[in-house]
Amino acid sequence: MADPLQSWNEGPAKSAIVAFVQARTDSASQDFVRPEDRIATFDQDGTLWVEHPMYVQLAFVLDRLAELAPQHREWKTSEPFKSALAGDLAAFANFTMADLETLVAASHAGMSTDDFRGIVRAWLAKAEHPRWKHPYTDLIYQPMLEVMQYLRANGFKVYIVTGGGQAFVRAYAERVYGTPPEHVIGSSLETKFEYNSDGKALLMRPPKLLLYNDLAGKPEDIYLFLGRPPLAAFGNSTGDQQMLEYTQAAGGARLMTLVLHDDPEREYSYGPESGQADTKFGAFTRALYDQAVSKGWTVASIKHDWKRVFAFEP
Amino acid sequence: MADPLQSWNEGPAKSAIVAFVQARTDSASQDFVRPEDRIATFDQDGTLWVEHPMYVQLAFVLDRLAELAPQHREWKTSEPFKSALAGDLAAFANFTMADLETLVAASHAGMSTDDFRGIVRAWLAKAEHPRWKHPYTDLIYQPMLEVMQYLRANGFKVYIVTGGGQAFVRAYAERVYGTPPEHVIGSSLETKFEYNSDGKALLMRPPKLLLYNDLAGKPEDIYLFLGRPPLAAFGNSTGDQQMLEYTQAAGGARLMTLVLHDDPEREYSYGPESGQADTKFGAFTRALYDQAVSKGWTVASIKHDWKRVFAFEP
Repeated sequence: MADPLQSWNEGPAKSAIVAFVQARTDSASQDFVRPEDRIATFDQDGTLWVEHPMYVQLAFVLDRLAELAPQHREWKTSEPFKSALAGDLAAFANFTMADLETLVAASHAGMSTDDFRGIVRAWLAKAEHPRWKHPYTDLIYQPMLEVMQYLRANGFKVYIVTGGGQAFVRAYAERVYGTPPEHVIGSSLETKFEYNSDGKALLMRPPKLLLYNDLAGKPEDIYLFLGRPPLAAFGNSTGDQQMLEYTQAAGGARLMTLVLHDDPEREYSYGPESGQADTKFGAFTRALYDQAVSKGWTVASIKHDWKRVFAFEP
Repeated sequence: MADPLQSWNEGPAKSAIVAFVQARTDSASQDFVRPEDRIATFDQDGTLWVEHPMYVQLAFVLDRLAELAPQHREWKTSEPFKSALAGDLAAFANFTMADLETLVAASHAGMSTDDFRGIVRAWLAKAEHPRWKHPYTDLIYQPMLEVMQYLRANGFKVYIVTGGGQAFVRAYAERVYGTPPEHVIGSSLETKFEYNSDGKALLMRPPKLLLYNDLAGKPEDIYLFLGRPPLAAFGNSTGDQQMLEYTQAAGGARLMTLVLHDDPEREYSYGPESGQADTKFGAFTRALYDQAVSKGWTVASIKHDWKRVFAFEP
């Protein structure tokens, strides 16, 4: 049989993943669970695809604001729009949650749910990553896609649990990851049920945050959507810490995995050895690394554990 | 092959259900959809189980308040607790949403998610319906259970979309309906990620409403959880109207069904002919009946369409 994890080098990370799946699916194992209870959750940014030099969704926000700017001349002089339109990355680093909410509201709200999906898809069809000059959706990590497929082949339901926007990710998740919309849990605006001028029902997107699905929000929303903790959880930053803690607290054979970005040649380096992790929001800090080691979590090093990073590599 | 809807009499309701399933699953049909897109949603109270003389969950609230009352002597003199503890059904009818939230907060919050599930299960194990003297979970409608099973056998994912409490319904939905926790969408309290004194992660239930899953909340939450409208939706009251409208608005062969309570002998009568519907919250009103007729929705009459109502009937 072909190796389902062929983009992984042999090593402790690959072994831990395989051992976990065997323990949960072998009916002779004391950790066996029926397929109905096999749930795995994956962070997206930095875990399933590239998040540098900025979150893909932030690139979408900037392009969309630029597109809308002619109708909002006041943005030229008022923050956070002024910095966003100038593409001032240093300013971004200092944006508050309120600033980000303002930018998301201006770029993601005020249209129907169907219209928003169309806007995201049209953007993805033409946007490119500045380094690789590929569509962003090419920049998914082949080894992680193999883990998703391996889990599904073993009866797992595989969820994306992202701090990013649920509606944004749903616009491409099925095509890119094989993940249907109902398996995407993410930060969400409220929607509002309305009737159009023909009396037809539709949902609008008001500029109001309903779920902020990061940090403690991840286990809270996993419970909201699924009613129980996953058996396995994958992340890459402090934004995933609580999800991994919630997974482990449920006991039994659970798999907690962190992707470590330590390969500047093939991707990026911003882990605890890079000297920049502890100064950044949502990073793989030294404290998180120490927690992973002391709690027996798996650390998957891009440099050492991944044979290749992207499917388009030769 | 055995009739999958054997508790249904032949008639327009049964025919509509069968014709819908055939249209969506026959690969030669122009309405064929792949299994991934086959989604059906069911209201619970009055659609899947008995909701009279009061919602089952309200019976739980009253029993739980009675249990907690010795520690809350102030409830004896303050509303809405005073009426709730007295079991004053007439007072209930005039409770506001704020009153109900107060009662839910007092009876459903302040413990961990695991503890709440245990409380619900312990109550269900001993509580009985006052008329049939059966556990409430025996009072599910056998014909509707057959529809759920028939849809699942045809590749549908079957969701419960209830105005009742999500955590309450999840405590028994898999055992009673074969519906796993992640297929229950309901009104929800927030949860709060915390650590216990051993540093172990857990989720607590603060007394704060996050989702009110009734009326317009139903399509809004269907979108939140599933990202698209269902192909088929089943309800029995004005609380389900927007869900049915959202389903129909998506076009193609969709099935919108309302259960009509018109059988006082075998169950209850509170539809538009009963003289009480238009005075009650969440009822099958005359206006809803007229909408169903004009929009081509299916009305399933308990009296005429159901061969039997409960599985325990001879």
